[in-house]
Amino acid sequence: MKSVAIIGVGLIGGSWALALKKHFSGVTILGVDNNQAHLEEALGLGLIDKAVDLDTAAQSDLVFVSIPVGAASEVIGSLLDKVGEHTLIMDAGSTKSALCQSISDHPNRSHFLAAHPIAGTEFSGPTAAKADLFDGKLMILCEIEKTAIRLQENILTAFQKIGMRLRYMDPESHDKHLAYVSHLSHVSSFMLGKTVMDKEADDRNIFDLAGSGFASTVRLAKSSPEMWGPIFLQNKEHLSHTLEAYISNLQKFKTLIDNEDLEALTSEMKRINTIEKILNPLPLTP
Amino acid sequence: MKSVAIIGVGLIGGSWALALKKHFSGVTILGVDNNQAHLEEALGLGLIDKAVDLDTAAQSDLVFVSIPVGAASEVIGSLLDKVGEHTLIMDAGSTKSALCQSISDHPNRSHFLAAHPIAGTEFSGPTAAKADLFDGKLMILCEIEKTAIRLQENILTAFQKIGMRLRYMDPESHDKHLAYVSHLSHVSSFMLGKTVMDKEADDRNIFDLAGSGFASTVRLAKSSPEMWGPIFLQNKEHLSHTLEAYISNLQKFKTLIDNEDLEALTSEMKRINTIEKILNPLPLTP
Repeated sequence: MKSVAIIGVGLIGGSWALALKKHFSGVTILGVDNNQAHLEEALGLGLIDKAVDLDTAAQSDLVFVSIPVGAASEVIGSLLDKVGEHTLIMDAGSTKSALCQSISDHPNRSHFLAAHPIAGTEFSGPTAAKADLFDGKLMILCEIEKTAIRLQENILTAFQKIGMRLRYMDPESHDKHLAYVSHLSHVSSFMLGKTVMDKEADDRNIFDLAGSGFASTVRLAKSSPEMWGPIFLQNKEHLSHTLEAYISNLQKFKTLIDNEDLEALTSEMKRINTIEKILNPLPLTP
Repeated sequence: MKSVAIIGVGLIGGSWALALKKHFSGVTILGVDNNQAHLEEALGLGLIDKAVDLDTAAQSDLVFVSIPVGAASEVIGSLLDKVGEHTLIMDAGSTKSALCQSISDHPNRSHFLAAHPIAGTEFSGPTAAKADLFDGKLMILCEIEKTAIRLQENILTAFQKIGMRLRYMDPESHDKHLAYVSHLSHVSSFMLGKTVMDKEADDRNIFDLAGSGFASTVRLAKSSPEMWGPIFLQNKEHLSHTLEAYISNLQKFKTLIDNEDLEALTSEMKRINTIEKILNPLPLTP
């Protein structure tokens, strides 16, 4: 790969740029961003070598689109309209069905790879970028059979060099699963933050007493609203269903507490404790 | 301090033993535990020097009671019955009202200090003990004016040497505040784990896709049911109220998603984002 364009030079795009610079010597990273301040920060931090427009970006070897999912369909459609003959466009969005649907009939569909790296932190913007963000992490690829065979080699090599573990799924399964293991966590964390902040409004003492348990559970409440709002809407159906199950579980647990049913509470928590065994293979990053 | 007895040699008791050994040379640590295996582990790990019975423990300079809150009132009452003339008994429980109430009329009440260190991990048992668990952490003290002045110096010196930051509150305020910043986090994490595990029962793929965000939010679901069940019941009234607020917030947020109200979702999340500024002073330990 000689030239790579990053559309959206924030946490994900900036980290992707750093990872490629590390593994492909001589690669030139081009940057596109609506936010002029972010673009200048990305240049200053050396995440990108040059700011360009979408037309130029569309001629690179690889175009990496890392912008909020609400804007991705339009930008990717427009990139596909003018895509270079040897260019692969990929995205990094947290929802896949709406995007894959929107470009399914595009004549240049085969220049696109629908992707979702399971990597990130609660921080955002170019300054949050880290060269090792993707090391050893999962990369979910959807509908890969719709991507031209001749455009697959470069990107699969990149995944391998970075050390990403690949998983292949259809967009609908992706969105359903991610509602549980990612989107629900974000809502639960935001609402935990809200509940305690509302209480804090009439009692400034509360946060002084918070320990690391609260900090860990509420960590995702620092996430970017501009990124997560569109994700919640695009995955509305699955997430709504997931939230129903979560609320119902909370209500049942509350009833056990109200009824002082220690035996049921204990047996319930013991069963949930087994999550430790399931989660242990996970890298617990900050 | 020459002799300290630890009643319950798990994560908290074991860590307290290690902290005292570090700061008081020559101190002898005695251990009491119903669980014979834990007692032997604690001896093997050097957390305690000798296993003793409650009668002997009650004659130490300091008796540190770190057992589930459901059993604390009875054990502390019984220790107070036979407490040595120069002995201070303290606890480390996550609820304070029921305990303080239960011993309020004991003739030896002045030999007791109601305490709650805001420190811990999701692990339990002697092997989870760490010498630095309490370093720089908060120690909440309740009704300290009921503890004999002559018994206060030793323990305040210990807090200072370990580097704990002291906060003084009445038991009722303690329980109300902790419902928000600790007990609610545990319930939300347990129920998040349950919701995803229930889903996983018919789809084994889910956990493969979980990232560090899920791991962080669900971390507390690994906590000890034997410890947390009694806490939830002893703080039933406040926790139930807190859970009501949390469930109501989740329902309102779900309605915003169902209505695709991006503007309200975004402004809600932006407000909650400010939690970052409030939480920043917190030590984010694993």
